Amino acid sequence: MLEPERIVRLEHAAVVLLDQRRLPLELVEVRCRSAAEVADAIRAMVVRGAPAIGIAAAYGLALAEESGEDLEAADAVLRASRPTAVNLAWALDRMREDPSPEHARALHFEEVERCRRMSEHTADLLPRGTRALTHCNAGGLATGGWGSAVGALRTAWERGLLTHVWVDETRPLLQGARLTAFELEAAGIPHAVVADSAAASLMAAGEVDCVITGADRIAANGDTANKIGTYSLAVLASHHGIPLYIVAPSSTVDLSTSDGNAIPIEERDPAEVSDRFPARNPAFDVTPAALIAAIVTEAGALRAPFGESLAGSIPR
Amino acid sequence: MLEPERIVRLEHAAVVLLDQRRLPLELVEVRCRSAAEVADAIRAMVVRGAPAIGIAAAYGLALAEESGEDLEAADAVLRASRPTAVNLAWALDRMREDPSPEHARALHFEEVERCRRMSEHTADLLPRGTRALTHCNAGGLATGGWGSAVGALRTAWERGLLTHVWVDETRPLLQGARLTAFELEAAGIPHAVVADSAAASLMAAGEVDCVITGADRIAANGDTANKIGTYSLAVLASHHGIPLYIVAPSSTVDLSTSDGNAIPIEERDPAEVSDRFPARNPAFDVTPAALIAAIVTEAGALRAPFGESLAGSIPR
Repeated sequence: MLEPERIVRLEHAAVVLLDQRRLPLELVEVRCRSAAEVADAIRAMVVRGAPAIGIAAAYGLALAEESGEDLEAADAVLRASRPTAVNLAWALDRMREDPSPEHARALHFEEVERCRRMSEHTADLLPRGTRALTHCNAGGLATGGWGSAVGALRTAWERGLLTHVWVDETRPLLQGARLTAFELEAAGIPHAVVADSAAASLMAAGEVDCVITGADRIAANGDTANKIGTYSLAVLASHHGIPLYIVAPSSTVDLSTSDGNAIPIEERDPAEVSDRFPARNPAFDVTPAALIAAIVTEAGALRAPFGESLAGSIPR
Repeated sequence: MLEPERIVRLEHAAVVLLDQRRLPLELVEVRCRSAAEVADAIRAMVVRGAPAIGIAAAYGLALAEESGEDLEAADAVLRASRPTAVNLAWALDRMREDPSPEHARALHFEEVERCRRMSEHTADLLPRGTRALTHCNAGGLATGGWGSAVGALRTAWERGLLTHVWVDETRPLLQGARLTAFELEAAGIPHAVVADSAAASLMAAGEVDCVITGADRIAANGDTANKIGTYSLAVLASHHGIPLYIVAPSSTVDLSTSDGNAIPIEERDPAEVSDRFPARNPAFDVTPAALIAAIVTEAGALRAPFGESLAGSIPR
């Protein structure tokens, strides 16, 4: 498993990020020497995954403070780097109270610790022999260490509950085929990459027992934004009577967003889909709460109606 | 539009195929000098699409007859080249009665004429302002000219009924992003390529009025095998109250296969999905008849229960 410091850290007046665009082929680092460079790296998806984006932004603000940058400007440029994941604003809000490197590091390691707790709670839901399907990468790379959905799969594997993981390749940027498969291989967990469109036929064939994903923003009513294709899986899982578990730290819950309609969905460069023909490239979709069997945070497995359970789960 | 002879023809003791693997970047032809070479080209997907595979095999048998090859052996090698599309067996059965080049050419142009008729019948189903979503390539390239699902979109466009086509990129081999977008561009039809997993969110946003695809084999009860991801779209379309139309010539209907469970599903090289990690690569899936609003053949738009309507639609 990649150590948290290997994924993101602050050292020698730079935020150092493992370049996730080049995995699994090479382990290369990118050094960001200002908050603006961290924001550029977030936008370019050098680092991605809602919690990891928040952590990178926290280190970015600490870097700005250390370097004597204008903190308002640093906050603004980081906050605007990507629109959908709420962890970015969450981490920056906390860092404004104390923009020190020590605070950023504490925030980072608390997030990893939350992932560990979520993973235990999620594994509690899984019967022995589980064959899970996951989408995108909600692993250590996405959370600064351990992982949310993939963390849960690790814990289930350690407990002897998991037999196989189907890995949606996750077009257009292949976070599943590149990052999740890489992490599962490192953990020794049996897995197979599949085209995103193959999930339905695996479900119909009875080869999927549950769908487990992370989240980029969970609205107050439980509607959940996550990587494009998650809503598709939610409908398919519901049709086949398969539970969908969303695994995410409380930093992903946005009580100020009432429901999914209010979550801004990032449209990325159509060239990620086609560099030759017209294309549309929404990076996320919204899964209605009604299609989610449980939202698992560090507080436990929350069940519908989520309005109450989510509000009660947020640390004050 | 590509002329039928540009897609597949017999000349100078060779079956000449437009190499569909290299589209849209280059228009290159592959010359097959024996039935075995035609079978290799079908297996390698130089030519693909159920009706086009049947036509290529028909020319392959005519080539074998011309060249004095053993017809039994030629038939066997062609018949075994790919398992799912039934048009291959259909075309070879017909060619055994008369393995002449003229017969192969007649079969080819009859198939194109069937596509024209299906397209008219399908357009009759579409209201003005239709925004259709299609998967894989069921265009002229897939049928030896004009196209089935894409042919229907052409006819709808000519009648002023169509305003936009969403093109599923169709992983792993990107027949949508490479071939369907290429054909729609040539026809001047407004379109946008999307990741396969984005279809659900487009449906939820009310941006899809119908799903139109081709087919590789239609069982006697209407269950339909088509490119992996079609079943996924069928479930999603049903969830969103959107009709799914299957457009295919009667050569795709296999009355000897009672239902979808009996259709052999080709598993292709996992390296098409991932060359680095374990992968599964089913090339097709089966959509149950209950999720299909109409199956449109040259005989017209057939409605459930398909058992009777399909049997009645096959020319004797």
